[in-house]
Amino acid sequence: ARTGVPEVVFAEGKTVEQIDDILMAHHERSAPLLTTRLTPEQMAHLGALTLPHLSLDPLARLASHRAPIPAADAPEVAVVCAGTSDLPVAREALLSARFLGLRADLICDVGVAGLWRLEQHLPTLTRHRVVIAVAGMEGALFSVLGGLLPGAIIAVPTSVGYGVGAQGKAALSSALSSCAPGVLTVNIDNGFGAAAAAAKILRPPQIQSDNPSG
Amino acid sequence: ARTGVPEVVFAEGKTVEQIDDILMAHHERSAPLLTTRLTPEQMAHLGALTLPHLSLDPLARLASHRAPIPAADAPEVAVVCAGTSDLPVAREALLSARFLGLRADLICDVGVAGLWRLEQHLPTLTRHRVVIAVAGMEGALFSVLGGLLPGAIIAVPTSVGYGVGAQGKAALSSALSSCAPGVLTVNIDNGFGAAAAAAKILRPPQIQSDNPSG
Amino acid sequence: ARTGVPEVVFAEGKTVEQIDDILMAHHERSAPLLTTRLTPEQMAHLGALTLPHLSLDPLARLASHRAPIPAADAPEVAVVCAGTSDLPVAREALLSARFLGLRADLICDVGVAGLWRLEQHLPTLTRHRVVIAVAGMEGALFSVLGGLLPGAIIAVPTSVGYGVGAQGKAALSSALSSCAPGVLTVNIDNGFGAAAAAAKILRPPQIQSDNPSG
Amino acid sequence: ARTGVPEVVFAEGKTVEQIDDILMAHHERSAPLLTTRLTPEQMAHLGALTLPHLSLDPLARLASHRAPIPAADAPEVAVVCAGTSDLPVAREALLSARFLGLRADLICDVGVAGLWRLEQHLPTLTRHRVVIAVAGMEGALFSVLGGLLPGAIIAVPTSVGYGVGAQGKAALSSALSSCAPGVLTVNIDNGFGAAAAAAKILRPPQIQSDNPSG
Amino acid sequence: ARTGVPEVVFAEGKTVEQIDDILMAHHERSAPLLTTRLTPEQMAHLGALTLPHLSLDPLARLASHRAPIPAADAPEVAVVCAGTSDLPVAREALLSARFLGLRADLICDVGVAGLWRLEQHLPTLTRHRVVIAVAGMEGALFSVLGGLLPGAIIAVPTSVGYGVGAQGKAALSSALSSCAPGVLTVNIDNGFGAAAAAAKILRPPQIQSDNPSG
Amino acid sequence: ARTGVPEVVFAEGKTVEQIDDILMAHHERSAPLLTTRLTPEQMAHLGALTLPHLSLDPLARLASHRAPIPAADAPEVAVVCAGTSDLPVAREALLSARFLGLRADLICDVGVAGLWRLEQHLPTLTRHRVVIAVAGMEGALFSVLGGLLPGAIIAVPTSVGYGVGAQGKAALSSALSSCAPGVLTVNIDNGFGAAAAAAKILRPPQIQSDNPSG
Amino acid sequence: ARTGVPEVVFAEGKTVEQIDDILMAHHERSAPLLTTRLTPEQMAHLGALTLPHLSLDPLARLASHRAPIPAADAPEVAVVCAGTSDLPVAREALLSARFLGLRADLICDVGVAGLWRLEQHLPTLTRHRVVIAVAGMEGALFSVLGGLLPGAIIAVPTSVGYGVGAQGKAALSSALSSCAPGVLTVNIDNGFGAAAAAAKILRPPQIQSDNPSG
Amino acid sequence: ARTGVPEVVFAEGKTVEQIDDILMAHHERSAPLLTTRLTPEQMAHLGALTLPHLSLDPLARLASHRAPIPAADAPEVAVVCAGTSDLPVAREALLSARFLGLRADLICDVGVAGLWRLEQHLPTLTRHRVVIAVAGMEGALFSVLGGLLPGAIIAVPTSVGYGVGAQGKAALSSALSSCAPGVLTVNIDNGFGAAAAAAKILRPPQIQSDNPSG
Ligand SMILES: Nc1ncnc2c1ncn2[C@@H]1O[C@H](COP(=O)(O)O)[C@@H](O)[C@H]1O
Ligand SMILES: Nc1ncnc2c1ncn2[C@@H]1O[C@H](COP(=O)(O)O)[C@@H](O)[C@H]1O
Ligand SMILES: Nc1ncnc2c1ncn2[C@@H]1O[C@H](COP(=O)(O)O)[C@@H](O)[C@H]1O
Ligand SMILES: Nc1ncnc2c1ncn2[C@@H]1O[C@H](COP(=O)(O)O)[C@@H](O)[C@H]1O
Ligand SMILES: [Mg+2]
Ligand SMILES: [Mg+2]
Ligand SMILES: [Mg+2]
Ligand SMILES: [Mg+2]
Ligand SMILES: [Mg+2]
Ligand SMILES: [Mg+2]
Ligand SMILES: [Mg+2]
Ligand SMILES: [Mg+2]
Repeated sequence: ARTGVPEVVFAEGKTVEQIDDILMAHHERSAPLLTTRLTPEQMAHLGALTLPHLSLDPLARLASHRAPIPAADAPEVAVVCAGTSDLPVAREALLSARFLGLRADLICDVGVAGLWRLEQHLPTLTRHRVVIAVAGMEGALFSVLGGLLPGAIIAVPTSVGYGVGAQGKAALSSALSSCAPGVLTVNIDNGFGAAAAAAKILRPPQIQSDNPSG
Repeated sequence: ARTGVPEVVFAEGKTVEQIDDILMAHHERSAPLLTTRLTPEQMAHLGALTLPHLSLDPLARLASHRAPIPAADAPEVAVVCAGTSDLPVAREALLSARFLGLRADLICDVGVAGLWRLEQHLPTLTRHRVVIAVAGMEGALFSVLGGLLPGAIIAVPTSVGYGVGAQGKAALSSALSSCAPGVLTVNIDNGFGAAAAAAKILRPPQIQSDNPSG
Repeated sequence: ARTGVPEVVFAEGKTVEQIDDILMAHHERSAPLLTTRLTPEQMAHLGALTLPHLSLDPLARLASHRAPIPAADAPEVAVVCAGTSDLPVAREALLSARFLGLRADLICDVGVAGLWRLEQHLPTLTRHRVVIAVAGMEGALFSVLGGLLPGAIIAVPTSVGYGVGAQGKAALSSALSSCAPGVLTVNIDNGFGAAAAAAKILRPPQIQSDNPSG
Repeated sequence: ARTGVPEVVFAEGKTVEQIDDILMAHHERSAPLLTTRLTPEQMAHLGALTLPHLSLDPLARLASHRAPIPAADAPEVAVVCAGTSDLPVAREALLSARFLGLRADLICDVGVAGLWRLEQHLPTLTRHRVVIAVAGMEGALFSVLGGLLPGAIIAVPTSVGYGVGAQGKAALSSALSSCAPGVLTVNIDNGFGAAAAAAKILRPPQIQSDNPSG
Repeated sequence: ARTGVPEVVFAEGKTVEQIDDILMAHHERSAPLLTTRLTPEQMAHLGALTLPHLSLDPLARLASHRAPIPAADAPEVAVVCAGTSDLPVAREALLSARFLGLRADLICDVGVAGLWRLEQHLPTLTRHRVVIAVAGMEGALFSVLGGLLPGAIIAVPTSVGYGVGAQGKAALSSALSSCAPGVLTVNIDNGFGAAAAAAKILRPPQIQSDNPSG
Repeated sequence: ARTGVPEVVFAEGKTVEQIDDILMAHHERSAPLLTTRLTPEQMAHLGALTLPHLSLDPLARLASHRAPIPAADAPEVAVVCAGTSDLPVAREALLSARFLGLRADLICDVGVAGLWRLEQHLPTLTRHRVVIAVAGMEGALFSVLGGLLPGAIIAVPTSVGYGVGAQGKAALSSALSSCAPGVLTVNIDNGFGAAAAAAKILRPPQIQSDNPSG
Repeated sequence: ARTGVPEVVFAEGKTVEQIDDILMAHHERSAPLLTTRLTPEQMAHLGALTLPHLSLDPLARLASHRAPIPAADAPEVAVVCAGTSDLPVAREALLSARFLGLRADLICDVGVAGLWRLEQHLPTLTRHRVVIAVAGMEGALFSVLGGLLPGAIIAVPTSVGYGVGAQGKAALSSALSSCAPGVLTVNIDNGFGAAAAAAKILRPPQIQSDNPSG
Repeated sequence: ARTGVPEVVFAEGKTVEQIDDILMAHHERSAPLLTTRLTPEQMAHLGALTLPHLSLDPLARLASHRAPIPAADAPEVAVVCAGTSDLPVAREALLSARFLGLRADLICDVGVAGLWRLEQHLPTLTRHRVVIAVAGMEGALFSVLGGLLPGAIIAVPTSVGYGVGAQGKAALSSALSSCAPGVLTVNIDNGFGAAAAAAKILRPPQIQSDNPSG
């Protein structure tokens, strides 16, 4: 909050009651609230509330309440993901970015097993200061993008993988060891964290310097 | 190169002859060249060359040849480091950032064992889109900054530490697990990588300068 | 027992019958007994017993039988926790401390993402020889407290976290690598262990009360 | 400093000049200063200075300048170590404890391969609120002491060991997993940290509350 | 088989049909068969068969078919375990030892948190060439026994533990790093393996040399 | 030997005398011998011998004695390496392959930071059943080649890297987790192993079936 | 696809709808499709479809649609597995190999606890350029085969194991560290990957058949 | 000592003076003393002493003082090692076994890359209750011996290896995960520990000699 990021709740490990309380408090104050990592049960509970300004995304496992509408000239970020199994994390990044005031688009299925599919998107991707890349397995996509794009890459390793790649460890170490310059990393599956960093980077500083505590 | 980052050489594991060849080629072309991770022997060899446009920094272990002079209105980045043992990595970040066209300053000795020393620098740090934070041991500085600043943090964990913190592992996992939003990470001791990402984010590429918010 | 710590049973991996047997033996002897790490099934079973001197805490997953009432001048310990997800472990520490004869209070939600919330509690915390700090994720709270308080910190890393912070590993390595002096550590999620150590430190054993400084 | 712990410098990774500067500043202010983890070269350099109030301990690798003399009724701590290979770390703990105002004694060579040697010391050890235990290899000493003593154990795992016990990992995990209540842990080889925690625990709180910032 | 060890089946990951087939083949040949690591479902299935020479032990999760009756002068092994949570593994060792022709007894609940309980058993334990020790958590029992007994210890680390001790890792590294001479180790939870090694050690070699292949 | 692979000696950890003995025995029998992983001292010693049929390669750290001359129609393998730091391992693979009877060529400096340099080599690489790829850091090259080539890739992760990529761990896990089909892996820095496997794959089976033992 | 490998889908983490869509698209185009890692639910769903050209293998967890019929002179690969617990992975390799156009046979139950059972198969195995070996636990089979056979071994470590061998880690490190030449490795449980590599090696692509040795 | 094992000193990390003191004390008492893990400097120092009853073995890095002469009917143990790089550890086991009163022989160079060399030794090895097996790399030898011999195997993994096998980790996990029954393990490179366990097993203590089978 004090750093200019609107309130976001991490639902994992919270009871339905705790989530309810926080949501209702924001509903009453007409305040924006993003809730991430909802379980199917929590999701079902929120769905049954039929709150007017609440929208749910089951794939991304998040609930967005009174999400601010990004301005037409809001800064832009691109989210790129390697395969369909990475979609939940990629959508968490996408929807978080929009909640935090950015314009954002998603490009999917451009993993290294089919590099040629990436080429058509290069003109678009070249325009961005920051591209969020979401990939599991060996995470080769991070280095490939880092070697081709002028902007920085925020790598989100996903827990898609097995054996030595289980829980996203191989993808994470690829992101950190990348020999392409400009690859930054967040924790495994942390789509929200990537979007939050992008928002902190891209939002116009005048707004930021208005913030008395920051 | 293709992505707009000038040539940078990683000296570790290269022979003095190989480094010499690359340097001389750039000298002849009057081209800029940054060399990082020089060993004392490689450093001594370069020092003996007395090349006119080559400047050496033994602490940061790098050599900068025909570094471009940052424009007076070049974008700015701040480098913050926890203790004096983190200085070599912090200076690698600082000098790399300048080589890559940014204006950059260094604030040292603000680790969590003396948090009150950080306070006086907050007004300055609040002005930046991106702050590079360099810390070893348990890396608590990353979260403290992430919780206080409106811009994004690029955390550079250093290999300063011992026991479970040896080789920077504790600091790295702190950076990645930080519960403060907007903390991005590069590999342990990778001061150059942090600077390269900052430069890719902050430099106004033609296309980006068309973008009103960039 | 021989070391002055009343009987405590670790329920995990024990059958309902085994726990029943131990509890009934203590009931008959009117002896105090603390049972930790109860599963919901074990908890339900104990609840159905309706034993007069048994009190259950589902969040902390423990059952306290004939807990001794701490004397009004009993030594005091403070339990501080970073977020609501750390509450189960924090309450295990709190209730164990009371069972072991200490006066104990709990301060919650003072993690590093909102450091300013910690400030109001500093005058209280400064009065203690020992403060139990409970935190997951990157565990930056341990170092922050270690840098601000005159007493020792017993860090209890929790298994709250994911990716590189999964199972409490990042928080544990932060506690152990802390560059703030006076941070001691127990195993991940071991709230009872922190309370037991605090009790062994603070209780005035006859021999210790001979010691003018104790 | 603000937390009441006198200045302590960690020498590892500092240049002889940096250490010299700090030491001379304290010499001029007649202020106490403890320097730990000195290399043989740094040690030789300090030895050649022949400063009047500086005393060196090569085994413990530390230098103590104007160490305060513990009062006759100062609180006491015991340091126990498993074998002669653990002596450097045990002495770091011992001398640090004295520097920090405690009375402290060392009992050596009581490892589990010769448990009967421990028995004669039990009456003494039973008198302490806190016992610092220093052991490498498998660190069984921590649990043995935790099971026999009424006070808390501060375990200092040492890097003495090889194979799976290399760098102190087996001893550390033994300390953290101990099934004896009241075992607290610091980082591998961190004798100073154990002493600092003991000092923060044992010093009379009135002195602590005098500290304006604490 | 060729090495003189009767047939033993590891049930984990086998279908009920596969286990049935093997068992029936042995039933028809009136041959001994030990089946270990049975799941509750597999156990229930075998129980329903009501085979005359089959005896089941649910705690040890094994089924013994036509177990040979150890001779009155058969070699002896002792099984010692630290706590009740280690009982499943200890009984797997005990019953396997008997199946393999040894006389075997079990001593339970002599962990290091209550070392004095071990003393009464020392005269018995001193008589054995080989003692199987079963312990989880930090596994201090292995070193304590290794330091007190003239025979060799076969350490069986159990997966009883949490945090850094989860899955038996701390107990295993204690066994391997033990500074008491004569501690041998098998895999975590491998009670059968300990018994098999004891049988190979203790069985009279004349029988062994009769075996044409080994 | 029995499997048709000529004698190869791993020099690491052998004395100069031991290597000498083996070499002289082969010299007397006029038999081929490949020696890998020679230290500079061992290399210097072999150089001083001035044996007629011995050729040394200091970069690859190997010595080849009476290497068979590959037939003009011998099967071919390509070795591709990411950067100049990977050259020692790549040359070990190249020269081993030739020693084992293959025709082999080396393509260098085609890492993912400069993917476009790879394109010109694709027509050549497409002709091979097996391509040996040598890369350190994050090893993205393995997946890129696996996605582009019809033959199988034998990935040789190198120990070039630091931080999480130190000792080749990131490159190894990339190779094993690759989502491109047909990527096989050998141990870190094992250039010889890659060549030996290529030779076992590519040598015409008739020669193989002539070998009575295998 | 571009590399000549027919379409293969990795079902883990995909919804039944997504799998259905892909399958129906191939059904309509009469195109071959292999689906691996099907869960029992996905399997049941596909079974209920009663598609004419779809054949399911529950043990291998795969579905093969319009599998090409290998030519009578198609290249051959052998699959060897250590025990019955390794069968699911071994069959994934076997059926994938056939789907990819190879002739393939499976030899089971030749693990090192019964090495003599392997001998009878050596004449057959000696004929192959490539043998796929599937083993869990300690994976000694890989080295035994590598030491006996003239062809290369593709080791598939399986997740069969417990304790230090859990999740296939011991088998994987055995494969990678094998001191027998010619052992190549794929990820744990990756039977498909082994088959894909074998197919890329053995299939006579037009270009390769120009090559006299291929 | 109390457990019947004569005094043994672990030299690593001890000063030359400390070793000297212990040795001289034994020299004066004419008592046996084994010193293991001597550095070259310590070795040189002991060599210069020219003590009459001291014999040094530089390869095994040990010094044996007044070693007892094993009786002609002393129990026997065999030491088997995979390759010449394992010799230092194998000789530590061999000479320790003799010092501890066993008759002992060494068989070298029988690793799995040349399994047929093992066959000729099987008749001898079959006679032993206990065989000490010393191997690095992937340690397949342990399982091969466990599958062929009637006695138990004490596996000594060595630190011979690189990549994933570095520091003996692959060999250790092979020993622990072995699917051959009767494989026991000691720490990496712990030849002494294997011999000490063998001696504790095999020596006929009075009590054991009462036991008809022992
Ligand atoms: N939550 C807990 N975590 C760690 N140790 C515990 C816990 N609860 C009880 N204990 C210890 O475990 C011992 C009892 O173990 P048990 O005999 O298995 O019930 C007691 O002596 C306590 O010191
Ligand atoms: N041996 C040691 N281990 C861990 N921390 C230490 C040690 N010696 C000093 N310190 C801490 O390190 C801090 C000083 O770090 P520095 O400013 O880098 O000299 C002091 O505040 C001490 O708390
Ligand atoms: N069992 C498997 N293990 C590893 N990779 C597989 C497996 N099955 C299919 N694949 C690969 O995964 C790719 C398909 O991934 P997806 O697009 O997520 O279905 C294919 O190109 C295959 O190479
Ligand atoms: N190479 C060795 N590896 C492991 N333990 C050893 C070794 N040599 C001696 N020891 C053990 O270490 C103990 C002596 O340790 P110390 O008192 O430090 O010399 C003896 O009781 C031996 O059991
Ligand atoms: Mg990917
Ligand atoms: Mg820090
Ligand atoms: Mg926290
Ligand atoms: Mg010890
Ligand atoms: Mg125990
Ligand atoms: Mg690379
Ligand atoms: Mg196997
Ligand atoms: Mg071997």
